[in-house]
Amino acid sequence: LKIFSLEGNQPLAQEVANLVGIPLGKSTVKRFADGEVQINIEESIRGCDVFIIQPTSNPVNEHLMELLIMIDACKRASAANINIVMPYYGYARQDRKARSREPITAKLVANIIEKAGASRMIALDLHAPQIQGFFDIPIDHLMGVPILSNYFLEKGLDPDTTVVVSPDHGGVTRARKMADRLKTPIAIIDKRRPKPNVAEVMNIVGDIDGKTAIIIDDIIDTAGTITLAADALVKKGAKEVYACCTHPVLSGPARERIENSQIKELVVTNSIQLPEDRKPSNVKELSVGELLAQAI
Amino acid sequence: LKIFSLEGNQPLAQEVANLVGIPLGKSTVKRFADGEVQINIEESIRGCDVFIIQPTSNPVNEHLMELLIMIDACKRASAANINIVMPYYGYARQDRKARSREPITAKLVANIIEKAGASRMIALDLHAPQIQGFFDIPIDHLMGVPILSNYFLEKGLDPDTTVVVSPDHGGVTRARKMADRLKTPIAIIDKRRPKPNVAEVMNIVGDIDGKTAIIIDDIIDTAGTITLAADALVKKGAKEVYACCTHPVLSGPARERIENSQIKELVVTNSIQLPEDRKPSNVKELSVGELLAQAI
Ligand SMILES: Nc1ncnc2c1ncn2[C@@H]1O[C@H](COP(=O)(O)O)[C@@H](O)[C@H]1O
Ligand SMILES: Nc1ncnc2c1ncn2[C@@H]1O[C@H](COP(=O)(O)O)[C@@H](O)[C@H]1O
Repeated sequence: LKIFSLEGNQPLAQEVANLVGIPLGKSTVKRFADGEVQINIEESIRGCDVFIIQPTSNPVNEHLMELLIMIDACKRASAANINIVMPYYGYARQDRKARSREPITAKLVANIIEKAGASRMIALDLHAPQIQGFFDIPIDHLMGVPILSNYFLEKGLDPDTTVVVSPDHGGVTRARKMADRLKTPIAIIDKRRPKPNVAEVMNIVGDIDGKTAIIIDDIIDTAGTITLAADALVKKGAKEVYACCTHPVLSGPARERIENSQIKELVVTNSIQLPEDRKPSNVKELSVGELLAQAI
Repeated sequence: LKIFSLEGNQPLAQEVANLVGIPLGKSTVKRFADGEVQINIEESIRGCDVFIIQPTSNPVNEHLMELLIMIDACKRASAANINIVMPYYGYARQDRKARSREPITAKLVANIIEKAGASRMIALDLHAPQIQGFFDIPIDHLMGVPILSNYFLEKGLDPDTTVVVSPDHGGVTRARKMADRLKTPIAIIDKRRPKPNVAEVMNIVGDIDGKTAIIIDDIIDTAGTITLAADALVKKGAKEVYACCTHPVLSGPARERIENSQIKELVVTNSIQLPEDRKPSNVKELSVGELLAQAI
C-alpha cells in the first residue's frame, strides 16, 4: 500500500497517511519552463496498491492534468491497482445537457480518468450521485453529512428550536439526512420568479420562526444563494443562521459576501484546501481525513 | 464544413477560415468563477464536418482541457466528423520513458483526445514522428521545413557559402531536408561531456568557415541550446548565424537570450501565438495558415 499526494491538498493527504500509519510516498510535481507538468515518482511501486489523493479544485485543469499524468506514470511503473481519492470532483456541475450543444464535462472527466488507467475511485459528496454511473470502474461515494451533523450535535442545539434548511429544491434530500441526525424538522427555500424580468421571490416552506436555522449545501461557490437565503431566513423570523457545506469552493466575492452576511458561522470540510486569503473569518473547517483513511 | 477556434491561436484560425473561404464558427470559451471551462457552440453542427483549431501551447493544460471539452460538446451535438487541427502538440517531448517511473504524457494526450471523440488529427512537426503511432485515428503530419526553407531561398543566399546546421544529433534528418531545398551542405553540433561534472564541449562536425550558418530545430524553448550553438559557430569561424524553428515556445529567459546572442534573425512559424512580451526584437514570423487550409 502506497499513498501519494499531488498538489491539490497536501495537508489532507499527509493527515490521511498519518491515520493509515504509513509515510506519504515520495514523489514530486514540478513544471517545466513552458508550464508542462513534470512528475517524478521516487520509489518503486511495482505490484503495489497505489492511492493518489487529489481533489480537482481550482486551478482545476492543472490539478486534473497532474492526476492523469500521475495515473499514467503509475500504470507504466507496473502498479497493481491505482486508486483515486478525489475529495472534490471538479466539473461535477456540468453533469447534463441543460441547453443544446453543451458538453457533459463531468462524464468527460470520468472517461479520461478511466482511460489514463485508474482502477478505482473514492469520491465525496458528488454534486449528483448519478456521476457514480459515469464510471465503469468501482466507485465509493462517501458522505459529508455525518461529519457536518456531528459538529452541530456537539453544539448541543435544542432540536425543538432548530431547523435544517435546504437552499433550493435540489438539496432537500441532503437536508433531510442532516435533520434525521439532529432530530429536527426541515425547511426549504422556495425561490421563484413571478414573471420574467421580475426579481426572484424567496419563499420559505416550513416553520423557522424564532429558530436556529442551519442551511446545508454540497458546494458553496460564489456564495450568492446562501447569503440571500440567510437574509430571507432572518427577515422571516429566524433567530440565528448557520451555513454548512462539504465543498468550500468560495470563488470571487464569496469571502466578502459571507463575512458581511447574516451567517453566524460557516462550517465546511477540508475536501478543498482553502488558501488563507479566501477563508472567511467566520469559517470552521472540519476534517474528512478520518473518513478517507477508513475508505482506504 | 465548420471551422471553430478555441483560445490557443485565434488569429491563425481566422486566417485559415479566410483561406478556406468560410466564416469561423460561432462559439465562446469562458471560465466560470471557479476557473472551470465553459464552452458554448452557438450554431447547429448536426451532421457537419467540424474542424477545431487549437495548438496546445502554454498554458498547455488550459488549452488541452478546452479542446477536450469542445470535442465532447461537438460529439454530443451530433457532428459527423470531429477533426482536430493542432499546429503545436503540447507534451510532445514526453514521448518515452527516459528514466524509471516516468509518464509518457504524449501518449496520454493522444488517448484522451481520442476518448473525447476526435475522428481525425492534423498535426505539424511533431517532436518525434513516432507520435503519429500514438493515435488509432487517422493523422496527417504536416512539415514546417518547406515554409522555413522558402524564406531563406527568397533571401537569395549563395549555396556555396551557406550551411544548414543541426543543433544536436536528433535533428540531423530535419537539417538534411532543409539543406536539400537550399542545395547546401550540413553541419552538426556535436555536444559531449568529456567527464561527469566537466563543462560540455561543443564540437562542430562539418565545414562552416566563413559561411552563413542556418541552425534549424523543431522547438525552441528556453533557447539555451540554440544560443550556445550560435556562439560556438561564430567562434569557429561562421560569418553569420540565422536560427529557425517551427514552434517558438520561447519560455523563461528565451527572449533575452536570443536578443543578446549571435543570432542575426530568428525565423519561426505562427504555430504558437507569441504574446508581444515574449517576442524577440529579431524574430520573423511566417504563417502556416496556407499549409493548414490546404489540409482541411
Ligand atoms: N463551475 C461552475 N460554476 C458555476 N456554474 C456551473 C459550473 N459548472 C456548471 N455550472 C452550471 O450550473 C448548473 C448545474 O447546477 P445545478 O442545477 O445546481 O446542478 C448547470 O446549468 C451548469 O451550466
Ligand atoms: N516541457 C518540457 N520542457 C523541457 N524538457 C522537457 C519537457 N518535456 C519533456 N522534457 C524532457 O526532454 C527530453 C526529451 O527531449 P529530446 O531528447 O529532445 O526528445 C525528455 O528527457 C524529457 O524529460
